[in-house]
Amino acid sequence: MVVGEILEERELIIIGGGPGGYSAAIRAAQLGMEVTLVEKGKPGGICLHHGCIPSKVLTQAASKFKDAKNLEEFGISVGEAEFSFERWQNKKKNVVDGLSKGVEGLLKANGVEVIQGTASFTSNDKIGIEQDEKFEAFRFENAIIATGSTPLVPEFLKELHERILSPYSVFQLEELPEHLVVYGSDYISLEIATSFRMLGSNVTLVLDDKKDTFEFDNAITKELTRVLKKNKIKLIKGSEVKELKTNENGVQLTVHSSGETITIEGSHFFYSVGHRPNLENVGIQFSDVTLNEEGFIEINNQCQTSVPSIFAIGDITAGPAFANKAAKQGKTAAECLAGIPSEHSLALIPTVVHTAPPIAAVGLTEEEAAEEGYHVKTGQFSMAGNGFASIIGKKDGVMKLVSDAETDRVLGFHVMSEGAIELIDKGVLAMEMVARDEDIMYPYYPHPSLNEGWLEASEALKEKAIHIPPAKKKKPVSTN
Amino acid sequence: MVVGEILEERELIIIGGGPGGYSAAIRAAQLGMEVTLVEKGKPGGICLHHGCIPSKVLTQAASKFKDAKNLEEFGISVGEAEFSFERWQNKKKNVVDGLSKGVEGLLKANGVEVIQGTASFTSNDKIGIEQDEKFEAFRFENAIIATGSTPLVPEFLKELHERILSPYSVFQLEELPEHLVVYGSDYISLEIATSFRMLGSNVTLVLDDKKDTFEFDNAITKELTRVLKKNKIKLIKGSEVKELKTNENGVQLTVHSSGETITIEGSHFFYSVGHRPNLENVGIQFSDVTLNEEGFIEINNQCQTSVPSIFAIGDITAGPAFANKAAKQGKTAAECLAGIPSEHSLALIPTVVHTAPPIAAVGLTEEEAAEEGYHVKTGQFSMAGNGFASIIGKKDGVMKLVSDAETDRVLGFHVMSEGAIELIDKGVLAMEMVARDEDIMYPYYPHPSLNEGWLEASEALKEKAIHIPPAKKKKPVSTN
Repeated sequence: MVVGEILEERELIIIGGGPGGYSAAIRAAQLGMEVTLVEKGKPGGICLHHGCIPSKVLTQAASKFKDAKNLEEFGISVGEAEFSFERWQNKKKNVVDGLSKGVEGLLKANGVEVIQGTASFTSNDKIGIEQDEKFEAFRFENAIIATGSTPLVPEFLKELHERILSPYSVFQLEELPEHLVVYGSDYISLEIATSFRMLGSNVTLVLDDKKDTFEFDNAITKELTRVLKKNKIKLIKGSEVKELKTNENGVQLTVHSSGETITIEGSHFFYSVGHRPNLENVGIQFSDVTLNEEGFIEINNQCQTSVPSIFAIGDITAGPAFANKAAKQGKTAAECLAGIPSEHSLALIPTVVHTAPPIAAVGLTEEEAAEEGYHVKTGQFSMAGNGFASIIGKKDGVMKLVSDAETDRVLGFHVMSEGAIELIDKGVLAMEMVARDEDIMYPYYPHPSLNEGWLEASEALKEKAIHIPPAKKKKPVSTN
Repeated sequence: MVVGEILEERELIIIGGGPGGYSAAIRAAQLGMEVTLVEKGKPGGICLHHGCIPSKVLTQAASKFKDAKNLEEFGISVGEAEFSFERWQNKKKNVVDGLSKGVEGLLKANGVEVIQGTASFTSNDKIGIEQDEKFEAFRFENAIIATGSTPLVPEFLKELHERILSPYSVFQLEELPEHLVVYGSDYISLEIATSFRMLGSNVTLVLDDKKDTFEFDNAITKELTRVLKKNKIKLIKGSEVKELKTNENGVQLTVHSSGETITIEGSHFFYSVGHRPNLENVGIQFSDVTLNEEGFIEINNQCQTSVPSIFAIGDITAGPAFANKAAKQGKTAAECLAGIPSEHSLALIPTVVHTAPPIAAVGLTEEEAAEEGYHVKTGQFSMAGNGFASIIGKKDGVMKLVSDAETDRVLGFHVMSEGAIELIDKGVLAMEMVARDEDIMYPYYPHPSLNEGWLEASEALKEKAIHIPPAKKKKPVSTN
């Protein structure tokens, strides 16, 4: 950016081609804007290349591997199942490449100009793009920042080592860890812990930051804890890390927990302890865009920053680092730029964890509802009592509704069960439409189906579930 | 029922212990009634012992068998998968026995008197129960008839044969048919056709009653037809059966179709062409209960018959022969008897078919909506464009919304996809709550998830789906 620069003009420049950036680009193009998307790697972002997609290829492979051992009961005989990380890498590559090409194709079909390079603000309306040796300067009418985030590294982790796995590098493994020590308590930690256990690794899950429990509703936490124990995942709570040692043979994590010093010997160490916004190289300091105290870009409901022509979406803004949040914000920003009234909210983002069985939730937990002063009533159904769960041999799990006894409004949906991800979809709609318990109880449920868990849980709110035994036994009527 | 009979008195007698009867019994007991349930076999009825449950054990085993052949791509190697019907029978027995014991336990825990026997009305307030050699007479305050239905037999079927399989006997098979000729077009026919094909049988599906197509929305029918063809299930439409011959080596079905005479040689013949109410031995003629023209018991919204103290629920009443309909009607009848305002409706019962992928729908098809005079708009998304479908390798399928362009109200949800049964749950709630397209479009969807198909389909209603290429390509903006 020297004297004599030649400025290109652009209507809308989007920095970052993840789910937020590419959704914004496509929606803006649909609305008639000329869109330029700058991405240093391939469109799709961390989600597609290192996060959501590879992680789900792993969780799905792990579940399938576990299920392959239980085919005999269905009358299906197979030889002993073996898992190869090397072959799994091919599957991952095929899925990621396929989806990546899909995104590229959509951008092209929508007439989006894609520039591979690194973009950096030089003022409130100018941006420089570095592309190999080339540096080009652009003036924009509007810009959207969508540069995403990077996993935080735990403070006690002084140096990297091939036996230390980050939320990205874990998906590059070519061999199964013999004993994986997982440090964290978020959905990523849980997915990694349960997947590697299913694949055959020994797993120790050390909750981060001295935590004593997970952040789910108590019914889910209880069932999850039971399932972790049943699957022989060792859970260490309330511990403070003293030291992590690594050498060529393994890792040694020393923690203080309940007054004791425990040393966990493992073959590999994995961590997931949050994320930080990718703002180091965006030149934000050359603009008037303001950050909040935690270093995230401040935005309003339209995703507009303190500079009216600059919008920000996704992980670089406050809230969870979820692809669906980024995508919704991207569409919101594009619509606002086109003059369409649109706003985003962080309310009612479902929690989803691809454990086995998976966990999903939306709305308030029982504890949160009580704290908010509701007269809380809960209805709960164990999947052990569900006919379809018996058929598929997946009886772990529980479904629970939290409701307000005064209005019968449902305040929260919580499910750990096979099919939980699909089943939470109804909960999200119910919350959105302010459903009451009878809205859940009255409609028809396919029989047999996992769905029926919601029916029983809603009936349990009124002590009238058919498949839950009465609290007190009645004396059977005599036949004579 | 002779002079000198000793009458026992009962508050509520329920005839039939299927999902309708046992749900009615438990709800009535919850509401303080003294309940007597008469069942000739074991509680659970046809659904549990010969219908919904065994059929889903079969469809699930078939899907798992098919999936076992595609594990390699996930990095999982197993030997060649083999299916044994004999071992599958064990699985079926375990599931059915487990659920049957569950129902027995619930009836007992609720203090329901269960009498094993055959009940028959002798007047509007008396019933006789035959139990082995014993015959007892009862006077009742109220009764609920829940005797279910029996599959209809096609007219051309003159005699039974071990190679002719009914919707019940098909689940007794101990060997895989070499070539199964399926006659029908309902969900049962489709489940049997696709399951046996997945298990390795050759399958010909002959649509019954000269039908040319299935009763789904056109998008589902199109995708289903494609999937049947892909899986090498031969589909014969618009045909009239001339003759079915059976001998010890196989079956021979001769049909007229499009002016041709076709003879299909198979090893076994299966039919599913509807059901008739089980009313032969109920002594209905000794009561004043009236039947409709088709021979089903006439009821009002409270499930009350023409005799105010006699209620009727489930398959012996008009409407589909579904367990969920029977269960809801059973609960309704029990509540009405307890003086609680309650009514049932046959609206919004979801259609569910356990094909692979499964099919589910609720509300109006595009064709029905047009016939009803709506200004119809549709939004559709192919699961080939869904990220999670790519991950799990289940890209067959489509999701479609039918809406009213004038009010933006969603009129119908249609899905053929892995997870369809769970995914339709949201559609049922949406229909129940009279959702508009923005109620489907606005909330968050987990990413990646199959659920996102609803998001894209709802966005497609407004031509703004992110993952559907624009109809016309825009010219890419030049970089120079």
